[in-house]
Amino acid sequence: MTDPKNDRFLRALRREPVDRTPVWLMRQAGRYLPEYRATRAQAGSFLAMAKAPELACEVTLQPLRRFPLDAAILFSDILTVPDAMGLGLYFVEGEGPKFERPVRSAADVARLAVPDMETDLRYVMDAVRVIRRELDGAVPLIGFSGSPWTLACYMVEGGGSDNFAKIKAMALNEPQALHRLLSVNTDAVIAYLSAQRAAGAQALQVFDTWGGVLSPAMYREFSLPYLARIARELARGEGAARTPLILFGKGNAPYLEELAASGAEGIGVDWLVELSEAARRAQGKVALQGNLDPAALYGSPDAVRAQVRAALDSYAAGNGGSREGHVFNLGHGLSPDMQPEHVAALVDEVHAYSAR
Amino acid sequence: MTDPKNDRFLRALRREPVDRTPVWLMRQAGRYLPEYRATRAQAGSFLAMAKAPELACEVTLQPLRRFPLDAAILFSDILTVPDAMGLGLYFVEGEGPKFERPVRSAADVARLAVPDMETDLRYVMDAVRVIRRELDGAVPLIGFSGSPWTLACYMVEGGGSDNFAKIKAMALNEPQALHRLLSVNTDAVIAYLSAQRAAGAQALQVFDTWGGVLSPAMYREFSLPYLARIARELARGEGAARTPLILFGKGNAPYLEELAASGAEGIGVDWLVELSEAARRAQGKVALQGNLDPAALYGSPDAVRAQVRAALDSYAAGNGGSREGHVFNLGHGLSPDMQPEHVAALVDEVHAYSAR
Repeated sequence: MTDPKNDRFLRALRREPVDRTPVWLMRQAGRYLPEYRATRAQAGSFLAMAKAPELACEVTLQPLRRFPLDAAILFSDILTVPDAMGLGLYFVEGEGPKFERPVRSAADVARLAVPDMETDLRYVMDAVRVIRRELDGAVPLIGFSGSPWTLACYMVEGGGSDNFAKIKAMALNEPQALHRLLSVNTDAVIAYLSAQRAAGAQALQVFDTWGGVLSPAMYREFSLPYLARIARELARGEGAARTPLILFGKGNAPYLEELAASGAEGIGVDWLVELSEAARRAQGKVALQGNLDPAALYGSPDAVRAQVRAALDSYAAGNGGSREGHVFNLGHGLSPDMQPEHVAALVDEVHAYSAR
Repeated sequence: MTDPKNDRFLRALRREPVDRTPVWLMRQAGRYLPEYRATRAQAGSFLAMAKAPELACEVTLQPLRRFPLDAAILFSDILTVPDAMGLGLYFVEGEGPKFERPVRSAADVARLAVPDMETDLRYVMDAVRVIRRELDGAVPLIGFSGSPWTLACYMVEGGGSDNFAKIKAMALNEPQALHRLLSVNTDAVIAYLSAQRAAGAQALQVFDTWGGVLSPAMYREFSLPYLARIARELARGEGAARTPLILFGKGNAPYLEELAASGAEGIGVDWLVELSEAARRAQGKVALQGNLDPAALYGSPDAVRAQVRAALDSYAAGNGGSREGHVFNLGHGLSPDMQPEHVAALVDEVHAYSAR
């Protein structure tokens, strides 16, 4: 496996010098692009698109045709793993993902098993292989998974939630059952990311979307140790040396030191922390990825560019004046009502300003 | 004006010794109580109840009849002020508050004026007077307002929001217009809280519910300075010496030092920070209010009690072993699906454990 032609992203994760700061955007393949909406209409549904490797490849590549992004990310859903565990993933328009058979008791937890990656989740591995072939080494491909805690949130709540009442009740009333659930999820995430790596993913990201709803004591009990185990076990696997891991989490800034000590190569942060502070606290141990507020894209292109410059400067200010070790991204995903022209301004400004 | 018979809450805000830690709960008057639902059904709507001083008094007192709470809080809505500015507040069942005439442009902002407190908002001041009379000095009455930024969020978005796209766009594209809006809101909040104080409120709380959606740079530009101006100007007004101010904010932990320097007597924090850390960082300059995750109430009564003890111990650990200067509360409001028996366990444990 050779490095891709554009290896800025991988170099930044290794904290090596780069000619300009690399940039990719969470949910860069998405509904804000008319060509994505067309492919989705053709597929009939989000899940049909995610489960057809050729269509998943098509939407993965769409943003790269428009913008000079420095990485591609596998088009998939974070809930493929619990779906493969038999929970029955489905989508209700306007309500997000749901499970037909949520996990509500210790007995439900006891029935869960790690799915087989090359049968139950073969469509994901096939998508990775097709995308790698079609990318032809242009930019690296990122594989991903939801975090054990974040998957558990959906599995127990049965879908999205405002207050996470069911899983927090489980944490308080049946902590052993929740730990068993998180342990199975962690085994599954490690197997899933290892299989994506074997299929050709050149970097891996774990999305801990809901870690930030926990108190510090509960985060340190129910999310952080499982993230750390993923980092530890992936570092021992086949391809470990070539395949960096990024731990992204909404609301993870209070735990930056602990995450930086996990062994992961990169930490993705949201916009609730100044990059200068994050960089100081990371102490050069990891690369940082982030962290523009996605809502910055509701500003004019000039305002977008000003926000990009501020974020780049903030990182450098906290990193001894150097841009090394920074992967530019948003602090969360793009939304359907954002304008591609504003995304173009963002990507252009990252490259133009950081090249100076 | 004499101190109430139970003055634990006011003493804690002055960081004076107390026989046990005082406790009240955000949204303690609310739908989780069957008697509240009965009064609301009788009133016909939430707004009709809030606008009828005798009914507002009734629901304010309901939780005090069940639980030995150490403070009452005026029953009202945070959006009374923009409603009085002419925006047309209404509620859609299951969707929360909305405005008929949201603020979308600099021209809309220019039309806004501070309402007259004893005419446009007389129903609020009447409610304060009726509640004070009915409380008869049993416990102190807290008056409150939304923060300038949080009011602006609803005024510009026209209701609740997931991503605050409209107000963030205004912040980026028309910052001067947003600052004018925040300035009018600040004048109105100061007049509103001053009038509640004159009508008999013995403590005041500002709810900055949405400050935590802002990046640090934007929080320091669009929320914090207006909170600080409220603290400064209220400290000069009639009754200032007797009427402490609490600044509560979801996601405000990163700004604790700055909030503690504002002149407010208390800072209310959510559950995303350990109280031990918050107490250390507040350095004895202010009282702290909080901060149990409301979802703790989904645990069994025994689990609720364990969480209460952990929070009390955490505060003391960060405050040199002393419980002084702590007002126990949740980190956010109670929800309709919570059980009164669990709330009873919470209140009881705060008093029982802190009295040791």
